[in-house]
Amino acid sequence: MSSDKLKPVFDKLFPQIDELKPDFINVLKQAVEIPAVSSDESLRPMVVKKAEFLADQLKSLGFHDIQLKELGTQPPPVTNPKLQLPPVVLSRYGNDSNKKTVLVYGHYDVQPAQMEDGWDTEPFELVVDEATQQLKGRGSTDDTGPLTGWLHIVRAHIEAGIEFPVNLITCFEGMEESGSLGLEELIGREATGYFKGVDAVCISDNYWLGTKKPVLTYGLRGCNYYQVTVSGPKADLHSGVFGGVIAEPMVDLMQILSSLVDSQGKILIKGIDEMVAPVTEKEHEIYKKIDFSLEELNEASGSNTALYKTKEDILMHRWRYPSLSVHGVEGAFYGQGAKTVIPAKVNGKFSIRTVPDMDSEKLTQLVVDHCNNAFKKLGSPNTCHAELIHDGAYWVSDPFNAQFTAASKATQVVYGVEPDLTREGGSIPITLTFEQQLKTSVLLLPMGRGDDGAHSINEKLDISNFINGIKLMGAYLHFYAASPEN
Amino acid sequence: MSSDKLKPVFDKLFPQIDELKPDFINVLKQAVEIPAVSSDESLRPMVVKKAEFLADQLKSLGFHDIQLKELGTQPPPVTNPKLQLPPVVLSRYGNDSNKKTVLVYGHYDVQPAQMEDGWDTEPFELVVDEATQQLKGRGSTDDTGPLTGWLHIVRAHIEAGIEFPVNLITCFEGMEESGSLGLEELIGREATGYFKGVDAVCISDNYWLGTKKPVLTYGLRGCNYYQVTVSGPKADLHSGVFGGVIAEPMVDLMQILSSLVDSQGKILIKGIDEMVAPVTEKEHEIYKKIDFSLEELNEASGSNTALYKTKEDILMHRWRYPSLSVHGVEGAFYGQGAKTVIPAKVNGKFSIRTVPDMDSEKLTQLVVDHCNNAFKKLGSPNTCHAELIHDGAYWVSDPFNAQFTAASKATQVVYGVEPDLTREGGSIPITLTFEQQLKTSVLLLPMGRGDDGAHSINEKLDISNFINGIKLMGAYLHFYAASPEN
Repeated sequence: MSSDKLKPVFDKLFPQIDELKPDFINVLKQAVEIPAVSSDESLRPMVVKKAEFLADQLKSLGFHDIQLKELGTQPPPVTNPKLQLPPVVLSRYGNDSNKKTVLVYGHYDVQPAQMEDGWDTEPFELVVDEATQQLKGRGSTDDTGPLTGWLHIVRAHIEAGIEFPVNLITCFEGMEESGSLGLEELIGREATGYFKGVDAVCISDNYWLGTKKPVLTYGLRGCNYYQVTVSGPKADLHSGVFGGVIAEPMVDLMQILSSLVDSQGKILIKGIDEMVAPVTEKEHEIYKKIDFSLEELNEASGSNTALYKTKEDILMHRWRYPSLSVHGVEGAFYGQGAKTVIPAKVNGKFSIRTVPDMDSEKLTQLVVDHCNNAFKKLGSPNTCHAELIHDGAYWVSDPFNAQFTAASKATQVVYGVEPDLTREGGSIPITLTFEQQLKTSVLLLPMGRGDDGAHSINEKLDISNFINGIKLMGAYLHFYAASPEN
Repeated sequence: MSSDKLKPVFDKLFPQIDELKPDFINVLKQAVEIPAVSSDESLRPMVVKKAEFLADQLKSLGFHDIQLKELGTQPPPVTNPKLQLPPVVLSRYGNDSNKKTVLVYGHYDVQPAQMEDGWDTEPFELVVDEATQQLKGRGSTDDTGPLTGWLHIVRAHIEAGIEFPVNLITCFEGMEESGSLGLEELIGREATGYFKGVDAVCISDNYWLGTKKPVLTYGLRGCNYYQVTVSGPKADLHSGVFGGVIAEPMVDLMQILSSLVDSQGKILIKGIDEMVAPVTEKEHEIYKKIDFSLEELNEASGSNTALYKTKEDILMHRWRYPSLSVHGVEGAFYGQGAKTVIPAKVNGKFSIRTVPDMDSEKLTQLVVDHCNNAFKKLGSPNTCHAELIHDGAYWVSDPFNAQFTAASKATQVVYGVEPDLTREGGSIPITLTFEQQLKTSVLLLPMGRGDDGAHSINEKLDISNFINGIKLMGAYLHFYAASPEN
């Protein structure tokens, strides 16, 4: 459907949203005041309280079948072995078999925050900064602001007397900042239950690439995390007594870790390059249009240590090529000052960010073989073992499918520009779970900007992003509802 | 002087020592009961109490000019900024200008110890184990047993009515286990004061190489400790977002650390080999005689990770060749599990054990140049800085000088065997300080065995080593007194 046909809808809906701005901010204010820090066991009752607050809000808006789904006790390590995981808030708005059904995901838990960390204002109070036109507080952008956006867009339809274009299902979790414990299993269980008939999934829990241009996100890299262990003597030894007469595990490990990647970022493990999907012409076009520069990367890293100079090279290496990072060493001396120890057993930690069409199992075989060969060459009497600690798959969607097309049109209506099509270098494992379990398309539709400081002090959400983001959610749902395909 | 001339002396002295055995053990018992742990600020009064206990003992034996030399407050880091360093116990026995003057050094402080560490008996009770004929307790061998030996040998002379062969000066410190704070300065100050006229220094604070054969120790390696720092971004970064697009300091550091030494222990920094004194024929002879084997090294390391197979190779690489150990990395991830961090600044720590004729300053220049060159080759936009954190010089004495000759003769009289002439791979920095400041020869004359567990649980001293060690001290002083040279 063209924008013209929906123009009358938006002409009623958008002013309504503008009018409700104070109410929307007020609801967000109430939500932010609940310190729902999922990583702090003592604050678990607050996380549950926030779930209940959301359930009350949903009820007052006319959502039905509202369920606070329990996920059981939290697995170790925990102080309280009976600690219950926070519930997942499931609910429905509308149940019309002639409409498409969209599942919206968000998380109501937040990162820890306290004034002593360096906040300018109380983190668990939503401060409306009139000068900067920003909403400041923990959760404002990650993810309480975007999550409540879904409630606000329903409210706006009701107040404006506009029929809601789709059936909505909410899946709001309270453990995202602590590994989404229990969520994957819930999605698996509810795929043919609560989530039956879902046509599309929309997640609003990421950010614009920069601060000016809206984006739609269609890809994430995966992450395979490895550990290579070199063992020698039975216990740590004194380097005065044993230095020069025994083979030191740390020396062997340095040789292995230095064989993985060079200082230009080139992965030296054979066979990996061959697994990476070639860049297509269409892809090239996407990168050309994106608003980004070397300067932005340098500002973000606080240095001039970029490996690439052009926008395309930087973004492709962040999003669509694999990378290998060496994170550290467990078992060696790590303190300040000088300690003359020969560590007996050291674990080198490194990870590879994965992209299409890398096969996780094949990659692991290449990595383990590489480490074993590198160690064998050393002729060391120590022992070496390389292994995968965990993996999370990459995710890439078709950025021109019905959902993305709808979201692109919506962006043009709300912001007046075509959104950049971005990927991200990191992982949001739940994205792939939704796609695979519900066999639907997933759209990442960010509300906030790249400088919102999601996990930092002084987290903020620009008021314009909040309000336009709500409009965007509405427009996206209307365009998607009107599209001929799923 | 031949052993024959001193035979009548030893024939009176040794039975006297045997007779006094219960008394000697009793004095050691009283000393061990004082938990003089220098690293525990709360136990500082106990360290001082032990100094006073020793002063009382010295007084009762007729030592004079007894001084508990204060060293001022302990420098930071300390909890109590007014914490006084424990005193150095100075005293004299005899003041005859016709006799030689021997300074004996020992330390009365001990390592921490508690039952929970795994001790079989209370660490601060001296337990006489009749079955094994061992004295068990913290400080039994390190260094309260040997230190009190000097008091016992004076007592034995008095009881036997034998004239003491030399003037004795004691220098007993209470901070050895915590870096000998303040001692170097005291030695410097007293070189022309309390210590004026000292002809020789004897330290009994190390161990036999093994468990059967007595040794005299004539060399120690030095230690130059280095840090190489690679800095990149302003703060730690997320490997999802920045992996592949910025130069990682940890990757550069792995390249530098892997260029220092190979898995066979060969130092790869150019110019170091050339500084090492060649092995002499006389040295070869010394190594041939020493009682040691590959099996003993494997037992000590609890592994089969030795770099050399023959006794000579092992000992030479422990004692007279340099070695390079990589100790760890500060600033990187060091915990268990997986953390996807790109560390912003990492410090690699390594040290080189130094030997004759390596020049510390020249070595540092070679190391810094090597690191800078290795970094330069990487073509990395990060920055690199290599520096010396601290150095302690090696020490080698002439094992055939008057002191060592006297101690060798004494060993033959007491144990019936020629002692092995050993060096040690580690450092005892105060050895060199005495040699340089007092311009005298220093002898390391160990009392205990290689398996005494000096810093471990169940520290012990064999009763035979205690009693024979006292005899050895006496015989050494007599032979040295009778030698024509200093």
